[in-house]
Amino acid sequence: MKYSKLFGKTVKDISGDVKMTSHRLLLQAGFIRESTAGRYYFLPLGMRVRDKLVAIVEEEMDRAGAQKMITPVLHPMELWDETNRSNSVGFELMSIQDQRGAHFALGGTAEEMVVDVVRKFNISYKDLPFNIYQFSQKFRDELRARGGLLRVREFLMKDAYSFHADEEDFKKEYENMAQTYTRIFDRIGLDTVMIESDNGYIGGEYCHEFVVESKIGESRYLITEDKSYAAHEEVVEFARQDKNLDEAMKPTEIVAVERGNSIQEGCRVHQNEAWQHIKSVLYMTDQNEPILAVIRGDLAVNEIKLKHVIGCYEIRLATEAEVEAQGTVIGYVSPLKIQVKKVGDLSLQTAHNLCTGADEFGKDTINVNYKRDFEVDLLADIAMPPEAAQTKEGKTLKEGKGVEVGNIFQLGTHYTTLMKEAEFTTAEGKRKPYYMGCYGIGIGRSMATAVEIHNDDRGIIWPKSLSPYQVHLVGLGKNDEVKNASEELYHKLLEAGIEVLYDDRNKQAGTKLADADLIGIPLRMVLSKRTLENDSVEWKERSKVEAETVPLAQLLEKTKQFYL
Amino acid sequence: MKYSKLFGKTVKDISGDVKMTSHRLLLQAGFIRESTAGRYYFLPLGMRVRDKLVAIVEEEMDRAGAQKMITPVLHPMELWDETNRSNSVGFELMSIQDQRGAHFALGGTAEEMVVDVVRKFNISYKDLPFNIYQFSQKFRDELRARGGLLRVREFLMKDAYSFHADEEDFKKEYENMAQTYTRIFDRIGLDTVMIESDNGYIGGEYCHEFVVESKIGESRYLITEDKSYAAHEEVVEFARQDKNLDEAMKPTEIVAVERGNSIQEGCRVHQNEAWQHIKSVLYMTDQNEPILAVIRGDLAVNEIKLKHVIGCYEIRLATEAEVEAQGTVIGYVSPLKIQVKKVGDLSLQTAHNLCTGADEFGKDTINVNYKRDFEVDLLADIAMPPEAAQTKEGKTLKEGKGVEVGNIFQLGTHYTTLMKEAEFTTAEGKRKPYYMGCYGIGIGRSMATAVEIHNDDRGIIWPKSLSPYQVHLVGLGKNDEVKNASEELYHKLLEAGIEVLYDDRNKQAGTKLADADLIGIPLRMVLSKRTLENDSVEWKERSKVEAETVPLAQLLEKTKQFYL
Repeated sequence: MKYSKLFGKTVKDISGDVKMTSHRLLLQAGFIRESTAGRYYFLPLGMRVRDKLVAIVEEEMDRAGAQKMITPVLHPMELWDETNRSNSVGFELMSIQDQRGAHFALGGTAEEMVVDVVRKFNISYKDLPFNIYQFSQKFRDELRARGGLLRVREFLMKDAYSFHADEEDFKKEYENMAQTYTRIFDRIGLDTVMIESDNGYIGGEYCHEFVVESKIGESRYLITEDKSYAAHEEVVEFARQDKNLDEAMKPTEIVAVERGNSIQEGCRVHQNEAWQHIKSVLYMTDQNEPILAVIRGDLAVNEIKLKHVIGCYEIRLATEAEVEAQGTVIGYVSPLKIQVKKVGDLSLQTAHNLCTGADEFGKDTINVNYKRDFEVDLLADIAMPPEAAQTKEGKTLKEGKGVEVGNIFQLGTHYTTLMKEAEFTTAEGKRKPYYMGCYGIGIGRSMATAVEIHNDDRGIIWPKSLSPYQVHLVGLGKNDEVKNASEELYHKLLEAGIEVLYDDRNKQAGTKLADADLIGIPLRMVLSKRTLENDSVEWKERSKVEAETVPLAQLLEKTKQFYL
Repeated sequence: MKYSKLFGKTVKDISGDVKMTSHRLLLQAGFIRESTAGRYYFLPLGMRVRDKLVAIVEEEMDRAGAQKMITPVLHPMELWDETNRSNSVGFELMSIQDQRGAHFALGGTAEEMVVDVVRKFNISYKDLPFNIYQFSQKFRDELRARGGLLRVREFLMKDAYSFHADEEDFKKEYENMAQTYTRIFDRIGLDTVMIESDNGYIGGEYCHEFVVESKIGESRYLITEDKSYAAHEEVVEFARQDKNLDEAMKPTEIVAVERGNSIQEGCRVHQNEAWQHIKSVLYMTDQNEPILAVIRGDLAVNEIKLKHVIGCYEIRLATEAEVEAQGTVIGYVSPLKIQVKKVGDLSLQTAHNLCTGADEFGKDTINVNYKRDFEVDLLADIAMPPEAAQTKEGKTLKEGKGVEVGNIFQLGTHYTTLMKEAEFTTAEGKRKPYYMGCYGIGIGRSMATAVEIHNDDRGIIWPKSLSPYQVHLVGLGKNDEVKNASEELYHKLLEAGIEVLYDDRNKQAGTKLADADLIGIPLRMVLSKRTLENDSVEWKERSKVEAETVPLAQLLEKTKQFYL
């Protein structure tokens, strides 16, 4: 490609609103251009990068056995009604009506659509499993969209959906996809961490985000120094340190206290530490069932873990009246007498002789011991991690930040039980809902993240696999000899199957070299009167400081080696 | 790909509404599936065909020097307001509002979007020309959508837009695109005719549809037997036969007549033929200017040609009052005295001694001769073709019907004068609107048309370039030896880089062979106990009746030859 005829050249002045490095560089170098906030044109250079990224994702998905297809962009709203998502989803759905009055959602995610097309077929256990994926435009009616390709209202996503006879079979595909994703991000120069996350559905074991660590990321999580374990706050597993298990259990006693309702106030009146208290929090489920969460006083209840443990979609704190209806009083709730379902945190096993309210205003019970004085219906992990929490192996968890570029997760039978006849025929001739998984990669976001990670103060430094061209060829000077030699080399490289961006403009050397650095093709070749005298070119790798002189005769071979 | 795990297998029963061959075959063979009317899923088989088609179009567009990019799907409505298209376009525009109240059009065509992105850059004559194209989803809010992929509400289109300094430069790209389109349709097995059409803009010289002749097509046109010339009715050029030019001109005479207002009535009272009359029709332009169209009585005025000739967007017939305001009367209008702009058809030169009204009720003038008795401001082609019209070369024009799979046309400066600052800097430092052309190909429609053309009563017969796989491999019988040999051959073919659909199901031979015919891969290989005894396979080309026996040892070579 001759740069003189490329549409979308480098741009000097860009808006002061542009804060993110990737946003600024992609704009300045002529890869993208904004239409309206959060909606971008991919210019020819940007399109080439996007196509390379798409081709890599496609190659790896195909290698993993997935099958590419595509759904319409407009989804019949009836399908979203079936899954109760037409009015509430985790993102802002856009909807539209056609002239016949039919309602459609602009595709945000495609679970309903793929289930709908699969159920149109008479699927038997012999057809399972399969994994279908698409690259399709997705829409989110975000109130704020800033940061270039990192947070947009319209974007290309690779979304895949796998269909299985049961969870056992799903797990194999989950592992297959985890490996596939690692390979994909490796190939495009992104070092990702697999972060355990919450999938919003019951059960949290199979849900991971692929995150590239970065200060500008919106994904926050906890991670060990060696990166062997990483998880979001809501799902992180951490060790509960034993506190005073060697201390003998003392007899309980009710004492009068004058205190406020916090654990801090309890510490003040009892002259002890937060871990020496029991925190009891009454919740109401979406079925209006009261649930008492019981946890060591220095820890906080993690409502997401609690929901998963009890198997419901929504919980809320009980009101004062609801607390009193259980024969107790706010600030003095205890697990001792109350007659509701109790869920205890693992931390209850780590301390003796704890303080709790006495279900009566102004009175506490002290020396309370789990198992001896009260039991719970379910002992589980329902805690938020404290500062400097450690894994079971004793590794300290630190806060991490990064950009989510992909995710994989279990859908189970969530959609296939909500949607009618989303069933296959088993070997025994019974009908059973398909068991599903789902797997996404944000294409534009991955591209922007690659730029966030690979750049310097002069511009982008593309990973070889994503670079719009392989060689940035520059001829310096208006000398005819140089021009002809450049033109000749350009065609020689093209004939050898090498992708070349050839800056054939009559511009100053400084401008052309600065543009080459900004655009960020990994390999630059400069021809000038001086290099021609030695039958050579100046060979400069974008990631290196020094240039070298390479004889023209060795150029093709060396270029091919570079891109091996 | 193993057929047992392919998502989207053949389907027996389909709706009775399915009338078109391509619709029925693509559905039955598992290439597409309807979501709602006019919106289709491309299943994995269909996706492979679509991808091959897209790759061919892309390869040829790139070879022609065009640059791929992409615009957002949602177009800011302000842009469509700039060109007055937000309320009236040649198709039904869908629009949507986001939660911030911004209005968008769902992309129907992208002229405004590409002009908008181009004008964001500081374009000079040095940057021109360029041609940018995209594959993007297009939306049309059609009231009726039937016929599978031939008439849809949502579809993938390749749309290209070229930018030039002037018309001269545009013409070169037009020719380049015409050749490119011919090559593309050739490669995908479509024999197209380039039909001259009306582009809706001023000037009709550069506007062609690429049409595949077919009874089911919606595009109607006139074409010579040898297909050397084809054009839509509105733009077709045809010869005006000389009638009686050897007859001496007689003196004009006003005669009293008792007749109705038609040419037929004139023939009755004057006892002659329609061509012996002059037809004079008064129109009003969108600028409220009266225009008199004058034509030989056996021909009809073509309003589209007339509009282009006088250079206006809309015309309408004058009312009775408007006719009378010109001092004449309906049924007796003549070109003799009227004081308005006159546009004459070429046919006026072909006959002598014609009859016309005398601008007075009940009176005609006879023996009227063009040039001697009246002149026109403009003599041009403004006629509809009569039955059995002939070209200037004397070739008879017959009516043709076909499917429009692509079009190329001149936009000129239509959009760039309506849109602000859509200008480049000339070598002299002046600002001038870009001169544009535009070029479309319907991807799904081309795919369906290929099926309409290439099929038999057993199913599809894919052109080699579009087939989802290259080989349909079938193992017959439950015999382990056959199964192992089939599996082995499957892997051998894959390793040789051949795309194989391998029917590994435990089904009857009849079912598997019928499915193979329906799916339509050009080459079928059958392994059975019998063929294995001869170390061979049955080789059957989908387009041939007879199968042949090919030794396993020659199979790879022969397959590669077949696909050369």
